[in-house]
Amino acid sequence: MFEQDIAQIQDLIDHERLTELRELFAQYPIPDIADILMAVDQNNRVLLFRLLPRAISSDVFSYLESEDRNEILKGLSHEETRNLLLNLRPDDRTVLFEELPGRVTQKLLNLLTPEELKTTRLLLGYPEESVGRLMTPDYVAVRPEWTIGEALDHIRLKGRHSETLNVIYVTDKSWKLLDAVEIYQFILTDPEQRVADLMGHSVIHISAFEDREEAVHVMLRYDIQALPVVDSEGVLLGVVTFDDVMDVAQLEATEDFHKGAAVTPLKGSYRETGIWELYRKRIVWLLGLVVVNILSLQLMAYYQEILASTIALTFFIPLLLGSGGNTGSQSSTIMVRGLATGDIEVNAWAASLGKELAVGLVLGLTMGLTGILLGSWNGGLTIALIVGITMMLIVIVANLIGAFLPLLLTKLKLDPAVASNPLITSITDVTGLIIFFSVSQWILAIAH
Amino acid sequence: MFEQDIAQIQDLIDHERLTELRELFAQYPIPDIADILMAVDQNNRVLLFRLLPRAISSDVFSYLESEDRNEILKGLSHEETRNLLLNLRPDDRTVLFEELPGRVTQKLLNLLTPEELKTTRLLLGYPEESVGRLMTPDYVAVRPEWTIGEALDHIRLKGRHSETLNVIYVTDKSWKLLDAVEIYQFILTDPEQRVADLMGHSVIHISAFEDREEAVHVMLRYDIQALPVVDSEGVLLGVVTFDDVMDVAQLEATEDFHKGAAVTPLKGSYRETGIWELYRKRIVWLLGLVVVNILSLQLMAYYQEILASTIALTFFIPLLLGSGGNTGSQSSTIMVRGLATGDIEVNAWAASLGKELAVGLVLGLTMGLTGILLGSWNGGLTIALIVGITMMLIVIVANLIGAFLPLLLTKLKLDPAVASNPLITSITDVTGLIIFFSVSQWILAIAH
Repeated sequence: MFEQDIAQIQDLIDHERLTELRELFAQYPIPDIADILMAVDQNNRVLLFRLLPRAISSDVFSYLESEDRNEILKGLSHEETRNLLLNLRPDDRTVLFEELPGRVTQKLLNLLTPEELKTTRLLLGYPEESVGRLMTPDYVAVRPEWTIGEALDHIRLKGRHSETLNVIYVTDKSWKLLDAVEIYQFILTDPEQRVADLMGHSVIHISAFEDREEAVHVMLRYDIQALPVVDSEGVLLGVVTFDDVMDVAQLEATEDFHKGAAVTPLKGSYRETGIWELYRKRIVWLLGLVVVNILSLQLMAYYQEILASTIALTFFIPLLLGSGGNTGSQSSTIMVRGLATGDIEVNAWAASLGKELAVGLVLGLTMGLTGILLGSWNGGLTIALIVGITMMLIVIVANLIGAFLPLLLTKLKLDPAVASNPLITSITDVTGLIIFFSVSQWILAIAH
Repeated sequence: MFEQDIAQIQDLIDHERLTELRELFAQYPIPDIADILMAVDQNNRVLLFRLLPRAISSDVFSYLESEDRNEILKGLSHEETRNLLLNLRPDDRTVLFEELPGRVTQKLLNLLTPEELKTTRLLLGYPEESVGRLMTPDYVAVRPEWTIGEALDHIRLKGRHSETLNVIYVTDKSWKLLDAVEIYQFILTDPEQRVADLMGHSVIHISAFEDREEAVHVMLRYDIQALPVVDSEGVLLGVVTFDDVMDVAQLEATEDFHKGAAVTPLKGSYRETGIWELYRKRIVWLLGLVVVNILSLQLMAYYQEILASTIALTFFIPLLLGSGGNTGSQSSTIMVRGLATGDIEVNAWAASLGKELAVGLVLGLTMGLTGILLGSWNGGLTIALIVGITMMLIVIVANLIGAFLPLLLTKLKLDPAVASNPLITSITDVTGLIIFFSVSQWILAIAH
């Protein structure tokens, strides 16, 4: 997408027109600079990175993928690395240290000032995927008894290095969070008034130990752009901003997509993930599902008399099991996603199951009729009856399994996303075969 | 979750203590008020809604689901409806009119002032799911030649009714967008300086006719909280705020989840969707997939000699087809999601297919070995060979189909999400059977 820009910059590099290069390069938005940086010739990357103004270079660095960060870090001097680290926002620094190998992290930690080190160690102390890991301690807080004018002076003094100035926090002397006030309210209000006059009844906040997914839910529900993070005493620790939360929402959705297809969620992007890593994340599930499928194998062997006696019935097995799997995948996916967004509540499970029972009945009737048609076309009356009834029952049962399993998993405090399409398909295969052989035995006994 | 609060409010209603009720109720955050409103006895809802201060009631109304909105609207007088409509934010009004039946929309449009009517008609004029439908025209713009002090005076004057004051837009006299400046920069800067001094090199913007999903991508990439919307001349039309975009991101992810399980995306929430609607969104796909499955049926019938001669081979069909379906679901889901987030680029299709070919080979070898073990355990050497080789080939081919189809659909400018798990499973069933019968024929011929 930046072919022209990249060519132009590569050209400036090749002709060593560094002043022009420096000026042009810094004019792009940060994410574009990051993309262009990784698109130029590998030998020129560190050179180009060094040309960036200090304030921009740390932001660009935060945008790179972790492998690319390592590459840049290797090319920088001690002093340059130190400056880069000090300019990184605290939350971006946490992410960097999370990703790097422990040995490199130790080396980098030694470059920090004692105060920066304290903050970093504190943020790294929160559990992985917790809100604490996402937050930045760079915010501005004011006291309720101050006038708006005093508050504005304080904001001007403290605000220059803050990541989040759109919302100003009101705390008491012991830093307990009292309220969050959008900065434009300070502009719209008479400077003689008190901060207390701007305060509302309640303030939405979250604990640093909460799962980061909860921060997504809270921000989506309350439409707030910066979520204050507190400890168990209600003391303000930091702020989570909407951009971090949007990234988390995207990551969590990707994880749920992967889980839904029985892939253990990847740690990094697909591009970054190696072949062995991809293999490991998938083979575990494929082999686990083979175990479920062994039941199908056993069932087929057990009922081989039926298969041998009426070979035409065998022809319908892929069709019947496939339809069951498709139906189960539909209902399980609707449930898993509904539970993730809060659209379906586990406490109202009876209502959801009732609805799915009803939908399953009509789906089963339609598919059962289709089964009768296909059966009479490819067999005779007996086969038509067996295929039709089996299809109807398989669809109804598969639909209920797909709806029930995610609810059950949630009730058991397990992740409903484990009810992946492949798992549901494997389970409906087994139940489908049981239904198929039972119905076959029954109808064949009547027919003879 | 609000059981206690709901009980308390129901109690105040029952005892007609309206003053206390009014005061207590308005203190909750907006989304909580909406939830409590829908949780109290149905007869009291309109009464409770009427008690809300006007500014809050329109926000609460925007949070309700569309059925609940209809219910409230029916209980309000003409005058009350009019006031409610006038207090709604323009973007929320667009959403309301989109959802209501045309007849009701017409009636409500008549209640608007000519100016409001013009704005509403304009917003409704953009295509469904376009950025234009999401935006609000309530923003504050300043001119580059103004001083910061003049700009602040203008913001104070115009800002009281704006939805988005965190970002101030800089335009020229013909309203062409020049830049977007965060409001705190106005506070941090000397009032004597000019707006032009705050301006940067470039401003991220989007066209009103773009798909709303594009707004999600841009905001995620550039981490901006409010995205200015322009026409083809670059004239500022409105602003899309992060909360609307987060909602869209959530909705689009839900649509992709549903598509991934071969469910036509639902229009509203699951709770709101009726049984017939759910049936229609699912049966189309189930019947369509039966058509693909008929191929499996024909293949089984065509090769019935093999099935009849070596019945033990038949036992492995569910296991083999199941494993192929699972593998294909894994790779197609990874591709579809990667394409949706931009992690996988369709232009780099060769790299992705190469990676999947490699992953598929190792997966195929592992699963092939598993197949040999299961085959020798449940059959003999011949069966072990057939099952092992078939399993290996099925896994490799299914993996490639799952990776290839989403890329092909994208190349053809179609939605890659059509490559749902059920569709992939049905296709891999057919190819799996072809592989199964070919390998069986070959090995059986050698064995005899």
